[in-house]
Formats: sequence, C-alpha cells, structure tokens
Amino acid sequence: MPEIRKDPFSNRWVVFSPERLRRPLHFEAESEIVFNEEDNPFIEGHESYTPPEVYASRNGSAPNSPGWKVRVVPNRFPALRIEGELKKEAVGFYDMMTGVGAHEVVIETPEPGLELEDLDSEGIAEVLKAYRARFLDLKQDSRFYYLMVFKNVGAFAGASIPHAHSQIVALPFIPIAVKEQLDTARKYYAEKERCLFHDILNAEMKFQKRMVYENQRFGVYCPYASRFAFETCIMPKAQQADFYRLEDHDLLQLADVLKLVLSKYRSALKKPSYNLVLTTAPFRREHSGYWETIDQDFRWHLTIMPRLTGLAGFEMGTGCYINSVYPAHAAETLREAVV
Amino acid sequence: MPEIRKDPFSNRWVVFSPERLRRPLHFEAESEIVFNEEDNPFIEGHESYTPPEVYASRNGSAPNSPGWKVRVVPNRFPALRIEGELKKEAVGFYDMMTGVGAHEVVIETPEPGLELEDLDSEGIAEVLKAYRARFLDLKQDSRFYYLMVFKNVGAFAGASIPHAHSQIVALPFIPIAVKEQLDTARKYYAEKERCLFHDILNAEMKFQKRMVYENQRFGVYCPYASRFAFETCIMPKAQQADFYRLEDHDLLQLADVLKLVLSKYRSALKKPSYNLVLTTAPFRREHSGYWETIDQDFRWHLTIMPRLTGLAGFEMGTGCYINSVYPAHAAETLREAVV
Repeated sequence: MPEIRKDPFSNRWVVFSPERLRRPLHFEAESEIVFNEEDNPFIEGHESYTPPEVYASRNGSAPNSPGWKVRVVPNRFPALRIEGELKKEAVGFYDMMTGVGAHEVVIETPEPGLELEDLDSEGIAEVLKAYRARFLDLKQDSRFYYLMVFKNVGAFAGASIPHAHSQIVALPFIPIAVKEQLDTARKYYAEKERCLFHDILNAEMKFQKRMVYENQRFGVYCPYASRFAFETCIMPKAQQADFYRLEDHDLLQLADVLKLVLSKYRSALKKPSYNLVLTTAPFRREHSGYWETIDQDFRWHLTIMPRLTGLAGFEMGTGCYINSVYPAHAAETLREAVV
Repeated sequence: MPEIRKDPFSNRWVVFSPERLRRPLHFEAESEIVFNEEDNPFIEGHESYTPPEVYASRNGSAPNSPGWKVRVVPNRFPALRIEGELKKEAVGFYDMMTGVGAHEVVIETPEPGLELEDLDSEGIAEVLKAYRARFLDLKQDSRFYYLMVFKNVGAFAGASIPHAHSQIVALPFIPIAVKEQLDTARKYYAEKERCLFHDILNAEMKFQKRMVYENQRFGVYCPYASRFAFETCIMPKAQQADFYRLEDHDLLQLADVLKLVLSKYRSALKKPSYNLVLTTAPFRREHSGYWETIDQDFRWHLTIMPRLTGLAGFEMGTGCYINSVYPAHAAETLREAVV
C-alpha cells in the first residue's frame, strides 16, 4: 500500500509509491523516449494491454474493444491505490495517511503519432468531456478531496510514453499549491468582495501586452510572474469554481483555445516539452464554512508550462524561479506565431 | 536590469533575467553537457576567462593568477545584478522589485575532471571556507536579505559546466521555501520551547533506520517525507542558526561528512545528477522582534537531492511529490554503500 507523508517544515504531502519503480523507464536519465509501437498499450486493437476502461467515448462499440475516440483506464503503475480505507495516523511526531486515490490515464486518441492539437476541436472537446465525466464519477467517492488533471508532453516534462495522453489523480488531501491559491482568493474576496481571478484577467485584457488570445468564453495570457518562459494561463471569463460544471458548448470553446495555443507553442518553440495542469476547486467542502464564498472567490484555470530549461538547486532550495523571458515578450511571440 | 516579480497567488518571487539567455546552453534540452576543455574558464591558467575574483584560497600568489585551491568569481551570466538600488514598486496591483543581488561561482578546484568528493577533507573544507567568507562579505550589503548556496551536478540537475563548482546567490528577499521553514520552526519553539530541528535529528538518531551516518558534530539522515528518492539532510548536532558561524574545526568535520555522503551516492547510485542546497538563517533580522528566538528555534542544514526522475505536471501543479523509494530503504542502501 502506498503511503502519504507530511513534511513537518512545509506541510507538503509526499506520496511514497514503490510500485512506480516498476515503470519501464525508472531511474534513467530520461532524455529520450525509446518506444516500440508494437508495445503501445494506447492504440486501437491493444485495448487488452490496459486495465479495463473506466470511461470511453464510443459509438455503440463494446467496452474494451476497438471503436473509440477517447478512453480512460487505470494507470498500470499507479502512484496511489483505489482499494483500501483512508486512515490518518501519527507516526512519532510525523503525520501520514494511507495512499488511497485513483490514478488514471486519459488516452486522447487511438491514433499513434498525433498530438492533442492535431485533433479537431470536437476531438479535443471529447478529451475534456472525459475529464468532466471522471470528475463527476470520482467526486462520489468520499475518500477523495481533490482531482488533479495534468498532461506531460516530452521527456523533459516527465513523459514516459509518447502516445497522446493525460493523467488524472484523485487525492485524499488538497495539495498545498492549490490550498495557497484557495486561501489567497478567499482572503482577497473577504477584503474586496471581488474575485482575484476576475481582477487579474480583467487587468490583463485591459493591458493587452501579456494577452495571447481570447474568444467569447476564455482568455489566454502570460502571467505577470510566470515561473517558466512562455508559460500561459487559460482562464474562463465567467465565474466558475468547478471545472466539472462546464457545459458542452463551453467545452467546445475551450477545445478551440487549447488547439490554438498548443499549435502556437509547437510553431513558436519547435515542439517543446510541456506540462499542462488544471487547477480547480476541491470536492469535499459541504461541511465547512471555510468554503462559504468559494463559488464567488475562486475560478478554475489551466496552466501550460513549457519545460525549456531544467529546474536546479536554486529552484529546489528557494521555491522561487529564474525566468529569462519576460511575459510580455512571450505573449508577443505567441501572438505572432503562425499556425 | 533584471526584475523580480511576485506571483499574486503564491507570494512566490520570480526573477526575470533576460541575460541568462546568453548562456551557451540556453533553450536546449540539456541532456548531455558538451564541453570543450580548452574553453573551460575554471582551470588554472584560465583566470582571465572569468570576471576578477572576489575571493580565493591562495598561498601568496597574486589575485587572478595561477596558484589557488578555491576561487570565487562573479557569474558571467548573472541572474541578478550587483549594481543598482533596491527599489520596491507596485505595478498595477502586482508587486515588483529591482533585480539587485549577487550571483557568484565557487570554483572548487583548479583540476578538471575532479568532483567535490575527490578532494581530501582539507580541500572540501577550503570550499566551505569560501562559502563562509562570502557570507561574511555579502552580509555587509544592506540590500541583501538571504544568501543562497547551492550546487548543481549533472545535466539532470541543471548543470551547464561539468567542472566542479557551486553557486552563491545573494537575494533582496527571503525565499518562500526558507520562510516556510523559519515560520514553522518559530511556531514550534513558541509552543514547545524546543527546536524542531533538534527534535527531528534526535528522533532520527533514536530510530536509526533513516540514519545514514553521523560523526561528532553532524548527523545525516533520509527525511521522513523526502521529496526525492535517496534525499539526505545533513544537520549539525549543536544549535546554530547561521552557517557562517561555523568554526574551522567544524568545517573540517562537515567536509568529512560531505566527502563520505557524496562518495556513497556515487557508488550506490552510479554518479547521479544531484542538487545540494544550504538552508540557513537570513541576514537582516536586527530590526524586528519577529526574529527574537531564531538562534534557538532554527538550525542551518544541507539537503542533497538526487535527480533520478523528472519533475512533471503532478509536481508543478500540486507542489507535492511522488517518491518511489522509502527513506528507510534509501538510508539502508546508502549506509551499506562501500566507498
């Protein structure tokens, strides 16, 4: 059973997951992804190579058979285990909890060699629908507090399989980076009766210089204090704390934004490695006044972080970052990138 | 002039430093360090390839000439600039300050092809003396609040030059990861009248299973919630908040520990990339009661983080980590490693 332990200095949880060692590429300097298409568990016809699917976008075909657009399956090397009770314990003066959680893979297309941005907007919207469906399912499980959706592309972003996919991790705690944002947003709202995310998107839309793109429902900008060169944030224009509340027409608009932005990265930065992260509101908030204003104060958003340079001792030791590209310059580059 | 900007959600400072783009290896997937020894600015006889030294361990030889053991020079591609006034400003509702600071390179030996652990304990102590000397000098500068000492070894830890060196960055703010530790330690002391670092080292020395090594003055253990597989912490046994207060005989004992631990890494993990980070007390604390108990509540320490697997979307988005090696197992492996 994996175990989750809290660092007594930072209150950061660390997931201990010895099973991850069984992954094909463990403990190697992962500079290049070596991959044999015959072993690819994510292509059509190889459905039996994965654990049984927990979701699929199908047109009448049987589960775990060919004939799908998007397929969600449990990770074969899960960081957390779906079985077992959530127990929280003191170990000496340390804190731990059992490593229960879900770790799933969203296979974004049955076609090998395609990237997410190669799909048409409807195809990308099917991926986003898969996220939403997994939210609606996993939030029923009272052991889980937060659902983390992310995508690693390229070896420098930690990907070990090149076939287009993203990952979903259901966690029995609210991660510290999300908690920080929630707390900041709550305090801001308490003081100003305005949403910090709204204020920032508004300021960026007025200032324009850090804006990359906007459509009817979403704005894309390079954050003022971006950690990574060419980092972007995709923010909904309307107030919405939970990603899973997105309606189909919004998903299609978001797919349109994603296709454009990822295509711009590909053309401007020559197919960079990147991480894409969804930050959204946590689940279990019914029982606490702490969350009272969350629907007004917090807004889900996507962050895309190109991984052009490594993270070194400075970043590890300070929690701060050195970025060599000003966001206004990054935004200009991305605006002008022809796709 | 570089600029330092605060992220409004996390209160994390980000250094914007376009000059860093001029580094030889910028924007490449830095999987292998390609390096020509003829261009090596760190070997004896190449003193003119670097900016003039700010410190050197010499036996009577002239500055910036051959005949040294350790040499400290300004970084040719500094993240921060030593010239200029520290100004703090509001930009819209964002916060920024001018990017003043020092960014220096500690050349640990004139010999190419040696690693820090290849030096004898006296040689390693000379490196530690160089750190101490730079602390004592840079703390005179009232613009600086914190001095960050770190070492990147190997391409996967962000190193761009293979010649043995470490780096010193003087910052005009206290980094958020250090602040967290300071705050936690202060609260712990206020509640218990004991030092958290003392209690942890004591608990680890009693438990033994996560201990790697100890000598008279220092203990080395794998932290209970290590972020990285085989992470170790080197902690002084006596109460000491400031690294720069170390006396010569303590430096020699620390050198002894470093030599052993780094040699154990090399043998157990086959020359892994790693980051070494010194966490110590900040400078400017005279004027505030906030720091009243720091000499009792805080203790400087070194952390060594092997970089065996990449940091991916999960870590970027949560601030949490997945570690596939339990610290007790890591400690056992390191204890048993023959050097």
